[in-house]
Amino acid sequence: MTKEKMLQPFSFHVLKSDGAARRGELVTRHGKVQTPAFMPVGTQGTVKGLTPEDVRGTGAEIVLGNTYHLMLRPGAERIAALGGLHTFMNWTLPILTDSGGFQVMSLSDLRKVDERAVTFRSHIDGAMVELTPERAIEIQTLLGADIAMQLDECLKLPAARAEIARAMQLSLRWAERSKRAFDATAHNGYALFGIVQGGDDLSLRAESARELTAMHFHGYAIGGLAVGEPQDVMLKIVTETTPMLPAEHPRYLMGVGTPHDLIEAVARGIDMFDCVLPTRNGRHGMAFTRYGAINLANARHANDSRPLDPESQHPAARTYSRAYLHHLTKANEMLGAVLLSTINLAYYETLMAGMREAIAARRFAEFCHLATAQWERGDLPAL
Amino acid sequence: MTKEKMLQPFSFHVLKSDGAARRGELVTRHGKVQTPAFMPVGTQGTVKGLTPEDVRGTGAEIVLGNTYHLMLRPGAERIAALGGLHTFMNWTLPILTDSGGFQVMSLSDLRKVDERAVTFRSHIDGAMVELTPERAIEIQTLLGADIAMQLDECLKLPAARAEIARAMQLSLRWAERSKRAFDATAHNGYALFGIVQGGDDLSLRAESARELTAMHFHGYAIGGLAVGEPQDVMLKIVTETTPMLPAEHPRYLMGVGTPHDLIEAVARGIDMFDCVLPTRNGRHGMAFTRYGAINLANARHANDSRPLDPESQHPAARTYSRAYLHHLTKANEMLGAVLLSTINLAYYETLMAGMREAIAARRFAEFCHLATAQWERGDLPAL
Repeated sequence: MTKEKMLQPFSFHVLKSDGAARRGELVTRHGKVQTPAFMPVGTQGTVKGLTPEDVRGTGAEIVLGNTYHLMLRPGAERIAALGGLHTFMNWTLPILTDSGGFQVMSLSDLRKVDERAVTFRSHIDGAMVELTPERAIEIQTLLGADIAMQLDECLKLPAARAEIARAMQLSLRWAERSKRAFDATAHNGYALFGIVQGGDDLSLRAESARELTAMHFHGYAIGGLAVGEPQDVMLKIVTETTPMLPAEHPRYLMGVGTPHDLIEAVARGIDMFDCVLPTRNGRHGMAFTRYGAINLANARHANDSRPLDPESQHPAARTYSRAYLHHLTKANEMLGAVLLSTINLAYYETLMAGMREAIAARRFAEFCHLATAQWERGDLPAL
Repeated sequence: MTKEKMLQPFSFHVLKSDGAARRGELVTRHGKVQTPAFMPVGTQGTVKGLTPEDVRGTGAEIVLGNTYHLMLRPGAERIAALGGLHTFMNWTLPILTDSGGFQVMSLSDLRKVDERAVTFRSHIDGAMVELTPERAIEIQTLLGADIAMQLDECLKLPAARAEIARAMQLSLRWAERSKRAFDATAHNGYALFGIVQGGDDLSLRAESARELTAMHFHGYAIGGLAVGEPQDVMLKIVTETTPMLPAEHPRYLMGVGTPHDLIEAVARGIDMFDCVLPTRNGRHGMAFTRYGAINLANARHANDSRPLDPESQHPAARTYSRAYLHHLTKANEMLGAVLLSTINLAYYETLMAGMREAIAARRFAEFCHLATAQWERGDLPAL
């Protein structure tokens, strides 16, 4: 790597737009990412079942790592001593890490939030662990994340407005502490994103977005969604929040979503996504395709020699028969999880590439209409 | 495929030899296999966790499929209707299938053997299933196996001599019925192997070998070993049985074994092997390497940035750190199973390739000495 490239700052450029939808590019220490981008989730330092080459083969240019899991096992200091997360997992392209806050809420059975920190019991060994905004940044710096996230408090919804307001205000103070810690240690080329909170209350979302913007983050995430609320509620928050975020910075909708969610959110100006759906559902026999979601466990596939999608850009979707994928799913074979995770990620990445191309050509609405109509028409006609 | 190639008969040629060790070549309907050969086990139509490209990338030229599993799920007729096992699992190179007999013994909890058939309860749905020698051949023909195995009765050892003799005699009669069924239906390029039984009794082994040879199979297997007996007992049977088998036909030692077993058996004139050890042990965190077996679950690997074998011919053994493989193993991540299965199969295939080269160069004893000494010296020195 040349010295010049090493010193290139993190940046984001909107290359084209079509309505609110944006076609952009992130420039990070480990390379460029075309947006709108979907990030496969590599929870424990691995996108489950897939080698880095497999992940790259789906079209992904960036993956997400989970601070909560990695801090508990194998530990941030250990990963740093081993050369950082990129080296550890043999992934040479950009990595975004979350702050750990969301998974503290969802995975640890005992936790206490106060002004200073969230304290929780590790789901692995039962140890009590403290996570401050400063420690969350330190961990992400040790991991070597190209994009780090501020620590925030994630609530389970529904919650009372006063409770949502309190958590949002605390998240703002933690945003400020996260920013200060990041600025004190971070190197050129790395980025820190703030996270808009405020539940389903638009005035709280507005306050959060305004205060965060004043802190000048490299990018802005919308957090606290995709936690079980209906799609229309999620999209309403996105619709109202996105215009409050500065247009020259990337916007990241955390934990979303289905292919339809992605299209609708890109239409509202979102640039980045992560979600476990393509990999988790793949492990449970569900395929995402141009023809909609297909449950391979269904007996109707047992004798079907056709591939999932003969026109897919990924060989796995063109090569293996539905009958074989059905068999692997019924027999609980690891290869079923591997192939369907691969096929699903490839579908997600192809969808993102299609949206990028459509935005650049200013035919995004047409692209969305065609993709949605294809899902609604349903599966390949029988031979 | 040219018509000439399609009609090429199954054949085996010993190209070189060094002592009792043979360097040969199998010619099958789906291509050539260099021997001595190790066959990865693809129990349910998949080498667990690996794509056919992954398996091919380890150096394997032939895989084994399990008749017992495939007949129960998804069913031999179904696989045939889908184009055969090669098409079903997307593996274009040769496939050997076992007869189902061994797994009836080890996996079904209720079974009855009589002259006509073995009848057993399916471990999947509890249905009673009957397997005759004729049906075992029919199933393997439906699967499209390049090399089929006769149905035999496998005993659990230790057993009384009279019981071993009875099962061996029955297996001989089943060999004859298997051969008759095969000859009535088989096409050019496909092969049927007989299986020598007789437990640990050399006179029974001799009788079995003599009678089978008189039936003129395409190849001869030694069965009923690798069922928990000490290595010296196994090798004694191999030492005594191999010379009774016709030199111009391939010899297959079923279900064996460790790297050391392979070397010792090749030294005694064995040409083919299959074993679940490299994949099963890989799924449980054990690596087979030039430095011996390495248990990745051991805490001493947690901070070790070195790869398993920097000089391996397979990139996975050179690329991923022991610390990462340790982490994947401790975190029970699918990718640990995938990578260690790959690394182990690559080691086995490299060992076979080394033996083939050494036999051809008439320095097999030296090769074995060096490989064994390397295992005994143990792991890579610490950095």
